[in-house]
Amino acid sequence: MLSGGLDSATISAVAHRDGFSIVALSFRYGQRNSGELEAAKAVAQSSGAERHVIADIDLRAYGGSALTDDIAVPKGRAESEIGGGIPVTYVPARNTIFLSHALALAEVEGAKDIFIGVNALDYSGYPDCRPEYIAAFQAMANLATKVGVEDDGGLTIHTPLMQLTKAGIVELGTGLGVDYAHTLSCYDPPDGPLDGPLDGPRDFTHCGACDACMLRRRGFEKAGITDPTIYLN
Amino acid sequence: MLSGGLDSATISAVAHRDGFSIVALSFRYGQRNSGELEAAKAVAQSSGAERHVIADIDLRAYGGSALTDDIAVPKGRAESEIGGGIPVTYVPARNTIFLSHALALAEVEGAKDIFIGVNALDYSGYPDCRPEYIAAFQAMANLATKVGVEDDGGLTIHTPLMQLTKAGIVELGTGLGVDYAHTLSCYDPPDGPLDGPLDGPRDFTHCGACDACMLRRRGFEKAGITDPTIYLN
Repeated sequence: MLSGGLDSATISAVAHRDGFSIVALSFRYGQRNSGELEAAKAVAQSSGAERHVIADIDLRAYGGSALTDDIAVPKGRAESEIGGGIPVTYVPARNTIFLSHALALAEVEGAKDIFIGVNALDYSGYPDCRPEYIAAFQAMANLATKVGVEDDGGLTIHTPLMQLTKAGIVELGTGLGVDYAHTLSCYDPPDGPLDGPLDGPRDFTHCGACDACMLRRRGFEKAGITDPTIYLN
Repeated sequence: MLSGGLDSATISAVAHRDGFSIVALSFRYGQRNSGELEAAKAVAQSSGAERHVIADIDLRAYGGSALTDDIAVPKGRAESEIGGGIPVTYVPARNTIFLSHALALAEVEGAKDIFIGVNALDYSGYPDCRPEYIAAFQAMANLATKVGVEDDGGLTIHTPLMQLTKAGIVELGTGLGVDYAHTLSCYDPPDGPLDGPLDGPRDFTHCGACDACMLRRRGFEKAGITDPTIYLN
């Protein structure tokens, strides 16, 4: 599952390192951040994905989140403010919907392994990023599908970032040669250039003030690695 | 969750009987059977739904089923042939995707109860119609969502038809006043009239030869109730 952010770029590199052939799946789900999909395409290419499926899911039909609805994205929050309760950027049942679609694609492809970039930081705020949630999804998936029925317990949801901090993720990906210049983490990115061929960070300018930008920035800082991204603020 | 078939029309009546206010959810998912949605609208209206959401999900992006892909729908199978293994009309991970979307809508609506019309007959062929699958989905849903986290175990997936045969479903719905003339069960319906206002069975003509038609027909026969539907064969 490839959003085009820092986390999913890193899991693509991990899956590639571990010898999996990759079918990347991205979603056009009515997000503000449609530059994500350009980033996803760049990451799919650089991680050697065999195929990149972009599926349409209109989550705006349900609303209820700052990422898909007319709710303001919080800006300028301190790190200590993040993780206190479920934030307005939470999209109702989003990971469940995304994993369900990944399950359908996996079943058609004959794949038994799904990689998702949830991690310990998301965990602090979003219920559908917790290890117990992922375990419950995997148990359900093995009862839901042909592959699960015919090969009991055969489906695995891989979460290689679950126990890592953002700094740890940046270190892991950098060690695996991920080019973070082609990733976009921002919840509310300014309109970038994105005309003509992609040529790096300028195409994926970050607002620098939303929670996602803040966490990304601190991650690179704590890892002592230069973030190739351009931040507006 | 309202497809517009016999089962979902019956659960709408059950939910209404049990005092729930109803938000109906239907999907435009690339199915052959788009007359389903006309039937769903008719059922939503007659069951007194407060709101009817029709969500777009393009399952054709994944393929792999006779209902969404260029695979022939089996015709003329005997009842004894149905239920031997997972049929080609199985749509990969379909109920998981549908329930996930219902979960998102439930979360936005503040609803804690989801009704789905899976039953003992579907159970024989589709893995995602079994009681253990529904129980696993409910457990996962309670870990996935705000409502589940804040009200532990608060979300319930209701399957009032699970232990019923088709005949039992027809009897239940008839007792509750369901007008089955406005339902469509066929996997591969002939083009009906469907121009102008709906006026009953002619709008929802059934092929009479696919598994779904066969099961519906036998259900009415065994219940000793007249099926208002017109069958081509």
